[in-house]
Amino acid sequence: MSLMLEEIRQQPAVLDRTLREELAAAGRIRELLRKRRPRAIVLVARGTSDNAALFGRYLLELETGIPVSLAAPSIFTLYGKQVDYRDCLVVAISQSGESTDTNLVLERARDQGAMTAGITNEAESSLARIAEHRLLVHAGREKSVAATKTYTGQMMTLYLLAWAMDAALDLDDLRRIPAVAEQALRLEEEIAEAAGRFRFMESTVVLGRGLNYSNAFEFALKMMETCAVVAERFSSADFLHGPIAMVEPQFPVFAFAPGGATWPAMRQMLDKVRDTTSEVLLITDESNSEAARFARRTITVPSRIEDETLSPIPYIIPAQLFAARLAAEKGLDPDRPRGLTKVTRTL
Amino acid sequence: MSLMLEEIRQQPAVLDRTLREELAAAGRIRELLRKRRPRAIVLVARGTSDNAALFGRYLLELETGIPVSLAAPSIFTLYGKQVDYRDCLVVAISQSGESTDTNLVLERARDQGAMTAGITNEAESSLARIAEHRLLVHAGREKSVAATKTYTGQMMTLYLLAWAMDAALDLDDLRRIPAVAEQALRLEEEIAEAAGRFRFMESTVVLGRGLNYSNAFEFALKMMETCAVVAERFSSADFLHGPIAMVEPQFPVFAFAPGGATWPAMRQMLDKVRDTTSEVLLITDESNSEAARFARRTITVPSRIEDETLSPIPYIIPAQLFAARLAAEKGLDPDRPRGLTKVTRTL
Repeated sequence: MSLMLEEIRQQPAVLDRTLREELAAAGRIRELLRKRRPRAIVLVARGTSDNAALFGRYLLELETGIPVSLAAPSIFTLYGKQVDYRDCLVVAISQSGESTDTNLVLERARDQGAMTAGITNEAESSLARIAEHRLLVHAGREKSVAATKTYTGQMMTLYLLAWAMDAALDLDDLRRIPAVAEQALRLEEEIAEAAGRFRFMESTVVLGRGLNYSNAFEFALKMMETCAVVAERFSSADFLHGPIAMVEPQFPVFAFAPGGATWPAMRQMLDKVRDTTSEVLLITDESNSEAARFARRTITVPSRIEDETLSPIPYIIPAQLFAARLAAEKGLDPDRPRGLTKVTRTL
Repeated sequence: MSLMLEEIRQQPAVLDRTLREELAAAGRIRELLRKRRPRAIVLVARGTSDNAALFGRYLLELETGIPVSLAAPSIFTLYGKQVDYRDCLVVAISQSGESTDTNLVLERARDQGAMTAGITNEAESSLARIAEHRLLVHAGREKSVAATKTYTGQMMTLYLLAWAMDAALDLDDLRRIPAVAEQALRLEEEIAEAAGRFRFMESTVVLGRGLNYSNAFEFALKMMETCAVVAERFSSADFLHGPIAMVEPQFPVFAFAPGGATWPAMRQMLDKVRDTTSEVLLITDESNSEAARFARRTITVPSRIEDETLSPIPYIIPAQLFAARLAAEKGLDPDRPRGLTKVTRTL
């Protein structure tokens, strides 16, 4: 079995541990932020962590109403310029805590007097040292190059950060996520069988919206890394503004389809895409009774996730399983993608 | 000749007219912003206009040091939530001025008392009515579904907005852009010949960094829309964090390669990609003497663009020409992409 699959299966335990161990840290951040509301929130990350940041971008803006921005590290690293981050909350996310560009942005923000937080899997990393506040992912070492358990672990810490900023999130709802993640894992054999059908897929597009937009990026990244599939990713709105023109009958479309706020827009898009491709696969759950009508296949998390806010972690798990099993179908080793190493240092 | 090619060729005149006609409006914005510095800048757009917004995101943050965010319209449209935009400058960009989601965000921002600006090609549009300040693109009607002249026109208004915010931009430098754009247009026959080589290309990746990152998105979008090519796009840093694993010898890489601040990072990436693909095509200019060593082919804007800040408009023109001529090589009509219409209304 690949390390990737092994680590995918560890996620319920990782999520549970992260939530339990970091609640106190989140509580301390909560006390501080009640005295000092940031004028903006800035998230800084690369790779899979940047996809977690994209989730945080939606979650934090939805839940706090404070404008959120994803940092462009090159402003600091290549152009040598500064951005005025005073009175901002700047949050760096990195599995290893050793991304030099991410750390540089956080350091500059701290020097300006911004509030800084670091989300990392490595308590002894440079990031953990630079950040004023730490939210640790308790994933144990991640050995597979393709990140899985640290992505969902980072998402869990972002829920905690939102909670610390007085989001209308119920801690008991968060505590139920590991059990739903466990249910999603039971889909593995069904997913393995579906993956066989895509053995010869060369390119695809993954669609998501709102809180699951980041999952579209993450699913696509997993397929690029581990299956060498050219995987595009779009919001259902942006997809209609141009990219839909490239979809042919041979071009499968994957989409995240929770019920709730984003479903009407996703349904509109699926209705439109039906004319151009014969193969749509949706990831959904038992609460969205309409989804099956819009796709050739659905992968249904065996749970009723009535609150879409809680869907992103259970929804990415079938996608991770799909990528890992598709890599196996294609005869590729998901733990050793071409040209990649675990810690990437970029200018 | 396609409308797309016709409109590509109109760009020097459009740029010149936009700069001349909007200088007064930019001057008025300048007076106001001197009294009231926004705490953050928020850009809101879809499709090609969103690529112009991505250019603005880098330009405005680099030149003003104020944090810039790209809005997520779904927060307002699907989730029905508010973001606190008081004391922010919110800028909506839309060719037609009739994107309902973009307009809704701007309206909500104005109701909160945010400073609002609209960048549009249609002086009589809803957007022009909603926005407190207007910067108009003087492109004449854009008939091709694939936007070209409004993209560069929007970029020109974003330079004017940066100038209005006391950027270290010289108006005389901006006045020289139309002439450099004219020089870029002279590459058409050379580009047409290069495009023939890519007749059977099915997928590709476009790389850019910093101020040319948005051009990577726009070049890829043009190829998706008009050539039905599956075109990925990444910053050279994010590309090394995973997606490089999908590159095979049959997979061409396009990149924007100006000299200056971003070149060391782009060079590092090109060095790495050389092992995996046999076909790299760079868009560069005469000031970057190293570029030719890192690619099988270069398309060189016949000008010395010593200041990288001024490269994005001249650099996208060869890419637009490439997409239009490649569509012709593939027997496709770039003015009528599958499944697209000029004004896209999304939820």
